[in-house]
Amino acid sequence: MTVYSELSPSPRTILTPGPVEVDPRVLRAMSYPILGQFDPEFTAIMNDAMAMLRSVFRTGNEWAYPVDGTSRSGIEAVLVSLIEPGDKVLIPIFGRFGYLLQEIAERCGAEVVVLEKTWGQVFDPEEVISAIRREKPELVAMVHGETSTGRIQPLKDIGHACRENDVLLVVDAVATIGGVPVDVDDWCLDAVIGGTQKCLSIPSGMSPITYNERAERKILKRKRVEKGIRQTADYGDPSKEGFSPIRSNYFDLSQLQDYWSPLRLNHHTEMTSMLYALREGLRIVLAEGLDARFARHRRQEAALVAGLSAMGLSLYGDASCKLPVVTCIDIPEGVDGESVRAMLLDSFGIEIASSFGPLKGKIWRIGTMGYSCSRKNVLHLLGALEAVLVRHRVPVNVGAGTQAALDAYDSV
Amino acid sequence: MTVYSELSPSPRTILTPGPVEVDPRVLRAMSYPILGQFDPEFTAIMNDAMAMLRSVFRTGNEWAYPVDGTSRSGIEAVLVSLIEPGDKVLIPIFGRFGYLLQEIAERCGAEVVVLEKTWGQVFDPEEVISAIRREKPELVAMVHGETSTGRIQPLKDIGHACRENDVLLVVDAVATIGGVPVDVDDWCLDAVIGGTQKCLSIPSGMSPITYNERAERKILKRKRVEKGIRQTADYGDPSKEGFSPIRSNYFDLSQLQDYWSPLRLNHHTEMTSMLYALREGLRIVLAEGLDARFARHRRQEAALVAGLSAMGLSLYGDASCKLPVVTCIDIPEGVDGESVRAMLLDSFGIEIASSFGPLKGKIWRIGTMGYSCSRKNVLHLLGALEAVLVRHRVPVNVGAGTQAALDAYDSV
Repeated sequence: MTVYSELSPSPRTILTPGPVEVDPRVLRAMSYPILGQFDPEFTAIMNDAMAMLRSVFRTGNEWAYPVDGTSRSGIEAVLVSLIEPGDKVLIPIFGRFGYLLQEIAERCGAEVVVLEKTWGQVFDPEEVISAIRREKPELVAMVHGETSTGRIQPLKDIGHACRENDVLLVVDAVATIGGVPVDVDDWCLDAVIGGTQKCLSIPSGMSPITYNERAERKILKRKRVEKGIRQTADYGDPSKEGFSPIRSNYFDLSQLQDYWSPLRLNHHTEMTSMLYALREGLRIVLAEGLDARFARHRRQEAALVAGLSAMGLSLYGDASCKLPVVTCIDIPEGVDGESVRAMLLDSFGIEIASSFGPLKGKIWRIGTMGYSCSRKNVLHLLGALEAVLVRHRVPVNVGAGTQAALDAYDSV
Repeated sequence: MTVYSELSPSPRTILTPGPVEVDPRVLRAMSYPILGQFDPEFTAIMNDAMAMLRSVFRTGNEWAYPVDGTSRSGIEAVLVSLIEPGDKVLIPIFGRFGYLLQEIAERCGAEVVVLEKTWGQVFDPEEVISAIRREKPELVAMVHGETSTGRIQPLKDIGHACRENDVLLVVDAVATIGGVPVDVDDWCLDAVIGGTQKCLSIPSGMSPITYNERAERKILKRKRVEKGIRQTADYGDPSKEGFSPIRSNYFDLSQLQDYWSPLRLNHHTEMTSMLYALREGLRIVLAEGLDARFARHRRQEAALVAGLSAMGLSLYGDASCKLPVVTCIDIPEGVDGESVRAMLLDSFGIEIASSFGPLKGKIWRIGTMGYSCSRKNVLHLLGALEAVLVRHRVPVNVGAGTQAALDAYDSV
């Protein structure tokens, strides 16, 4: 019989666009003994988490709770609950995660219309708004912070246009929530999906979502409760004329909201330890304060960008729409990007990321998110990257990167 | 601004059919700092978990890995990946979780045929086998251990009949894995779903699954890789004749197995801390030894049943198919079952369960699963239940329950 060794993960400085380092207080929260899912102490923790999520999403929505899965589980839950087969869905795409929205929407049976933007740029809101007027979709789905390219899409004008045209707007804010403003109500976003393992610095495993009454109306039209726990005759008879039940049980938001409501209608068994982590992580975010947290992310970004530029590296993408929490670097000509990443990890314990599809092998991506987004980490990375690039015979301005970052910190 | 208090869950003795108490070593594993998902140390942990799952499922299957969600996420992943819309699916139902299989299969677009058994009983395998011959379904899905009624379904003959008739057999072993034998290969089960939060005593949040080459062939026929990470031209063109892509992205086992394979094709961001918990929990299960673990569950069941009977309580359901890890008690006439449960929790810190649907208010359910399945807990419960029943003016044989359980322990 194989004898397995004790778990003993090495310490890492994680500067990818997620997952990132987790606050030790959140790690500790997961080590507490569990409670039963209907224990009043546990349902109180569920309610705390909902209230905290409303604050983080800056919304008055009743519904703000986690879907139990990784970030894309939240995206799929929102899309499969809102999209009826045959619905027309407009998806403006400016990177890999836009394609993910397309993929999921297609699997939901949507008639998908895409707008594509060259990677490294984002849409002028007017481009999207005129497509909305032209295509008259039921729903628009788009990414807020696109980690594959390190860009951020302005959403406020698009949100208001969707509201005026009575179109539902679904936003993937997985990469931005907790690091960059996401003003759900002010921007008129109907349903928003956040991620835990990025700027919230909670381990991957839950996907916080919020949606308003406009979205809820569509969801409730499709409600169906499974036999064995039905409490009323109005459970959603599939033979009803025009009734299009949600195609997933696990991702059925009409049932999930009953589970998260005082009704507590049994659905899944809530992930106890992950919910402890979520509550503690959100508590830490709110104790820091959202505005202070956004400012901290901006400060580290400024120092990192100053350091990389002073080193002589060139940044990828349109600077006017740079995502503050992800910084992309063009891999210098002739350099094996994976070899640089491997040496950073093996010798310095630092992880940075590569990218996907057309950008594979072309750029490195550095995340400065949540607990990982610290002066110590930025300075550590700049020194380490310089050393590794020198070992790879890349001409860099030796010593300049760290000094430029220190200057940037001094100037604020 | 609301100030939230520190997380501080009360200690509980959890004797429900899940979630149950978690081994402190598993809780500690979740408190380790995280690794990036493509860090070689992390992918080694993924591989360890797969190898351990093969042992726990007693299978030589290549594929044994967790789906990232609660138990029903694993069920839905298997069903949505295996069922093409229009497929005929036979579901023998003997409790609430059979209805869940029906519900999910219907949402997958299956033509579902059900067999229903009075709650409290299970099927004679011949009943299922003759239905298989009559209905000629593509797939049979059924529950192994039905926690809603506390019954266990013998599967070996059904498994062999499915193999002979070239029908895929999917089994929900959420409640049994790690507590009762689940012999995947010996019983000819094609796809099996386990749960973490029951006999494995890991927090809810992952659903271990395994499936064989028969199941894999059907899954791969439906494979489609999303744009943005496609590496080959053979990504699954939906316009291909007769091609029926899997309707879910999150639950698409063809993509999940690529992520869990050496290919490591990016899908979701693996749940780091939950995977630490899974690896540690499985390590503990294998260190105890499966047979020793099953025997421990049987010992506690025998003592509990002896104690409850000596107290004068009557057990619910057909004794010949009692699920060893769940013991159901008829709530005595005129007793408010919820009041008893509340007093057990408030005064003694013990949680037991009620049930669903037709059994709501009729039975209590006591789980003896995993780390919760201990002599200490059984004795603690018997004393506490006696005290609470006396306070509720239920005539019980005072003092007899605990003594009978001690006798049962002495006799082995």
